[in-house]
Amino acid sequence: MRLLPLFVTAAATLLIGAGPAKLTPNDIVAKSPSSAWQAIDPDDLLVMDLANGGRVVIQLAPAFAPVHVANIRALARGSYWNGATIYRLQDNYVAQWGLNDSDKGFPAGVVAKPSAEYTRPLKGLAITRLGSPDPYAPGAGFVDGWPVAYSPKAGWADLTHCYGTVGVGRDLSPDTGTGGELYAVIGHGPRQLDRNIAIVGRVVEGIDRLSSLPRGTEALGFYKDKAQYVPIAGIRLASDMPAPDRPAFEVMNTASATFAKYLRVRANRNDDFYIRPAGGVDLCNVQVPVRRKG
Amino acid sequence: MRLLPLFVTAAATLLIGAGPAKLTPNDIVAKSPSSAWQAIDPDDLLVMDLANGGRVVIQLAPAFAPVHVANIRALARGSYWNGATIYRLQDNYVAQWGLNDSDKGFPAGVVAKPSAEYTRPLKGLAITRLGSPDPYAPGAGFVDGWPVAYSPKAGWADLTHCYGTVGVGRDLSPDTGTGGELYAVIGHGPRQLDRNIAIVGRVVEGIDRLSSLPRGTEALGFYKDKAQYVPIAGIRLASDMPAPDRPAFEVMNTASATFAKYLRVRANRNDDFYIRPAGGVDLCNVQVPVRRKG
Repeated sequence: MRLLPLFVTAAATLLIGAGPAKLTPNDIVAKSPSSAWQAIDPDDLLVMDLANGGRVVIQLAPAFAPVHVANIRALARGSYWNGATIYRLQDNYVAQWGLNDSDKGFPAGVVAKPSAEYTRPLKGLAITRLGSPDPYAPGAGFVDGWPVAYSPKAGWADLTHCYGTVGVGRDLSPDTGTGGELYAVIGHGPRQLDRNIAIVGRVVEGIDRLSSLPRGTEALGFYKDKAQYVPIAGIRLASDMPAPDRPAFEVMNTASATFAKYLRVRANRNDDFYIRPAGGVDLCNVQVPVRRKG
Repeated sequence: MRLLPLFVTAAATLLIGAGPAKLTPNDIVAKSPSSAWQAIDPDDLLVMDLANGGRVVIQLAPAFAPVHVANIRALARGSYWNGATIYRLQDNYVAQWGLNDSDKGFPAGVVAKPSAEYTRPLKGLAITRLGSPDPYAPGAGFVDGWPVAYSPKAGWADLTHCYGTVGVGRDLSPDTGTGGELYAVIGHGPRQLDRNIAIVGRVVEGIDRLSSLPRGTEALGFYKDKAQYVPIAGIRLASDMPAPDRPAFEVMNTASATFAKYLRVRANRNDDFYIRPAGGVDLCNVQVPVRRKG
């Protein structure tokens, strides 16, 4: 019996078939010009090191939740997360971390009650349209490397809950969370949370360090025993790390011709494995390419 | 600082606020009449026991891929999967298992080259409509407990790749796979695979036993060393297990009034955590309720 891979590799694709090779999304990323990429500011990279040696790197989104993001920077710089853990793992939903029920005070500069940064004005944003219908909003697309939903009529735009999205845990409204307790999506994008909670970024490396953790057995995926909590060794901004140690990333420019091609192929997979291209794509299935720089 | 759960529990919801409690999807399941449920035939339950003690239970979908499902039953009854392992874990995509590159022959009754059971005729299916746009197909909804996409014009319907969906690994077309190599979705629904591969069921219990496994580091998430393969102790049909040991499940009738209410609330979360109901929902975010019976 042959090996039955779900996908053949890009290399294999090029060897099979007489016609011209049809590109996969990965092919487009591999062949992209450097002009299609934008460096991520090290002030926008939050580096979470787990005590087990794993590293999770998060790109922050100050254009969408400026006060929550400023809080997160102040929490990192003020060593607020010393002693923090991952204390919740709910399957097909989120991993959540922070100090949980601690009474620890905030470092200077943290806004204790930020406004509800759940949407921002659409005005001034240059949107690359998804080109497929979105069940959650009148419009969907990409702005400056981020997946967004929007309403031209109501005039708002918002970041969306996709795999790897990072948001701010909060209590019931009017609480909006501070940024001290964060979660990352590890399952099918729970888009019902859009516009109900502050999204502050996305995991750009190491999501598997969260998604492969044991699931919590208490209600909502909380770990039952503190012994199960996953210790966090430290959370720092890349900009506060010594230059040689800093991880550096770049994101594909979503206004580029390369991204337009990538988006078209995501919606119309016609490489050799596929026999019926979909002709459409879900916003969360168009992961904007992010890669290590240099 | 308060605990900041991402969600309050249903019980807490009932205690907060002066107005009538607004129901969560879980509340609707909890209050549902037994008439809203249908037992799953034990011939349609595939029980995979891992050597580490974990159990994964899969509901088969013979109405959509009858030959592939018949193959899977014959493979289970013929002990084909003795020595099988989980050999691939690709983050945000699939867990895959079987005998990988073995040359083992098939038991009697296995069709070596099934036809491409990627769609079925729409005719005769009673569809409960999703009521939200679908990026991948002209229509989306539910048939007999299953999420489906469909085209009234072209006359097809198909099962969809959502979290927990189980499909058949295959090589390049015209290969359609036999059922010997199976995968389960452990990330955002890769709907681009719809109509390109045979879907044979969904995990109804124990998906966390797959989703929490370490990710493979080779291309496409294959484990690098055979020592990393996760051994499978056995794969049986529930109908072949001694009656006292058989797990029994029931699925919500997707033609019931209870499911209609559940669907409405999934698209319009207005329990106390939510401040802005979405007014729409993605097919894969309407997990059809399945529960242990008795």
